[in-house]
Amino acid sequence: MTDKVRLAPVGLGRWARVLARGAQRGDTLELYSCFSRDEARRTAFQAEFGIERSASSYEELLADPAVEGVIVTTPNDTHKDVIIQALEAGKAVYTDKPIAHTLEDANRIAAAVSDTGQVFAVGHSSRRLSGHREMKRWLDDRRIGDISLAEANFSNERGLELTPDTWRYYADKSPGGAFIQLGVHHADTLQFLLGPVKSVTAHARKLYTKSEVPDAVMAILEFESGPLGYIGTGWASPGVYSMNLLGTKANLMYDLDFTHWDESHLADDWSTLRSQFYGESVRQQVELPRTDMFREQLEEFGLAIRGRATVEVGAVEAVRALGVVRAVLESSKRDGQAVLVQEVIHEAGVDPSLA
Amino acid sequence: MTDKVRLAPVGLGRWARVLARGAQRGDTLELYSCFSRDEARRTAFQAEFGIERSASSYEELLADPAVEGVIVTTPNDTHKDVIIQALEAGKAVYTDKPIAHTLEDANRIAAAVSDTGQVFAVGHSSRRLSGHREMKRWLDDRRIGDISLAEANFSNERGLELTPDTWRYYADKSPGGAFIQLGVHHADTLQFLLGPVKSVTAHARKLYTKSEVPDAVMAILEFESGPLGYIGTGWASPGVYSMNLLGTKANLMYDLDFTHWDESHLADDWSTLRSQFYGESVRQQVELPRTDMFREQLEEFGLAIRGRATVEVGAVEAVRALGVVRAVLESSKRDGQAVLVQEVIHEAGVDPSLA
Repeated sequence: MTDKVRLAPVGLGRWARVLARGAQRGDTLELYSCFSRDEARRTAFQAEFGIERSASSYEELLADPAVEGVIVTTPNDTHKDVIIQALEAGKAVYTDKPIAHTLEDANRIAAAVSDTGQVFAVGHSSRRLSGHREMKRWLDDRRIGDISLAEANFSNERGLELTPDTWRYYADKSPGGAFIQLGVHHADTLQFLLGPVKSVTAHARKLYTKSEVPDAVMAILEFESGPLGYIGTGWASPGVYSMNLLGTKANLMYDLDFTHWDESHLADDWSTLRSQFYGESVRQQVELPRTDMFREQLEEFGLAIRGRATVEVGAVEAVRALGVVRAVLESSKRDGQAVLVQEVIHEAGVDPSLA
Repeated sequence: MTDKVRLAPVGLGRWARVLARGAQRGDTLELYSCFSRDEARRTAFQAEFGIERSASSYEELLADPAVEGVIVTTPNDTHKDVIIQALEAGKAVYTDKPIAHTLEDANRIAAAVSDTGQVFAVGHSSRRLSGHREMKRWLDDRRIGDISLAEANFSNERGLELTPDTWRYYADKSPGGAFIQLGVHHADTLQFLLGPVKSVTAHARKLYTKSEVPDAVMAILEFESGPLGYIGTGWASPGVYSMNLLGTKANLMYDLDFTHWDESHLADDWSTLRSQFYGESVRQQVELPRTDMFREQLEEFGLAIRGRATVEVGAVEAVRALGVVRAVLESSKRDGQAVLVQEVIHEAGVDPSLA
């Protein structure tokens, strides 16, 4: 109890609170301090989570030797500076996904991770959902056979609610809209399950949102291992989170109620994984072990800081997920023409060892 | 009872039997005669369905003045000759989907329909499924709001079973494989629901089938009305038939157990349409009136022959569905680049009044 890993959330908005609740569901992490430029927000955050101290500047937070790691939930376009500053101050960094809004920024972050040797984790949490872990087991032991089609959707209504005072409203801060915020989860999870995406074909449309970013994006992925994948993301409907894998021996259908996304310890109660073998008219529900993706990834980060775990999703995996996002945007600009993910990554000058 | 419409199945394979059972579930149609080149097959078909007579040649069948219409289930690449011969002999024609395997053939068929003035119907049956009819009502009365994403899948294991003695094995007879056989249903139904498809972006892959045709096809559709659509079709997994519509007011999810596809009077027992409004964690099952798509389309055809109904799916609708299929194949050849459906239709020389 006295040896909890001391973390400090930075950027104290809605998502910082979701992650703070995740961290506090376990007993290995301490929310030791926190920082936001907004003093009222700092005070409210301290009160909500019982955090004894906060810093009045980011420099002050990073100068505190007791802080072992920071939890970054600032806007995507600020990730580079916020993360690199922390790494160079000798802190481990957990950042919410995506690693950055551009591959250039992601590359700079990855270089700083490499240069400083600090622990670095990216919150591609959805691959930790119990249903996806089970899918991976079915793939590994070949119960599902060979995959031909993998289809995923992640959608909600956020695009309809965007106003000019939020950074997600703007194309330069949140390029790709629904896809960089939601689709990026499936971009990571599908690569976790099926290996690297080779090329991407996509269309992005701005249909009903008043913001600058697309609220309807569809992408076809070609995996190096052969199968075709699909990611649909919308920002103009009730929430959907689903993934179907169609295999030569069986299908697996995963469906999660997005209403409970933020409460990741309850997500399993609101999700179903169903299997379908040949000749079965009624799909069977697959029993899933209970998980808690936000808690799990933060605890893994904490253990990694102490040298007792390896971070599952670091710069390499995060660059691959962002590479798919950027290829989607590029393909959409080219009217759907296939774009190689590696080409996009290399053109952005990303260190070849990452891609 | 004595005034039943007298129909004659031509091409007496598996699908002719499915349709014959559909026709016999009602009491307005009489299977009056039948024809296949294979005499044993004719005899067996007569016995199975209690059909009093058969013809030993197609010419003989068409020369029988009592035959009012033929039901064509011959291979796709034979449709043109079989259909035109019947039309020119003064018979009404119902043909299984697709109308033909090429737009050139479809155009010739459409011209013959126009020249002869005969009743002509194409078996795009899936739009008649109760779930899709209900979706249309939700679209028409705006309960679902505006659609951003429409996602559909139709897959089964047929590609794994194809052998060189079946016409579906060959690229020149069944171009597009899974997509022309299964995806074409959604190509019609989605256009029934959302209006014409403007452009198509697609990838087709031959992964596990030994045949010449693709067993994994994914296509993104851009509708003239704005939304994006997706059709996934595989031929290497247990059967899937689904369609999800994501709207600004609600989502609708339709799922049908493919195992019961052939028994269309039971399909509603094995399908569910669920609605999802904002804030609802449990999706509500939507009550569906009972339907029987194969019976319904044949009875409509029979009534149309007697001038008491209009055919819902004729040459125009069937050309539009086939246009999407051909655009999918063209886009896949062009590495996913968007292909205008109208361009593909016009380049095939199709009469502009059809497209």
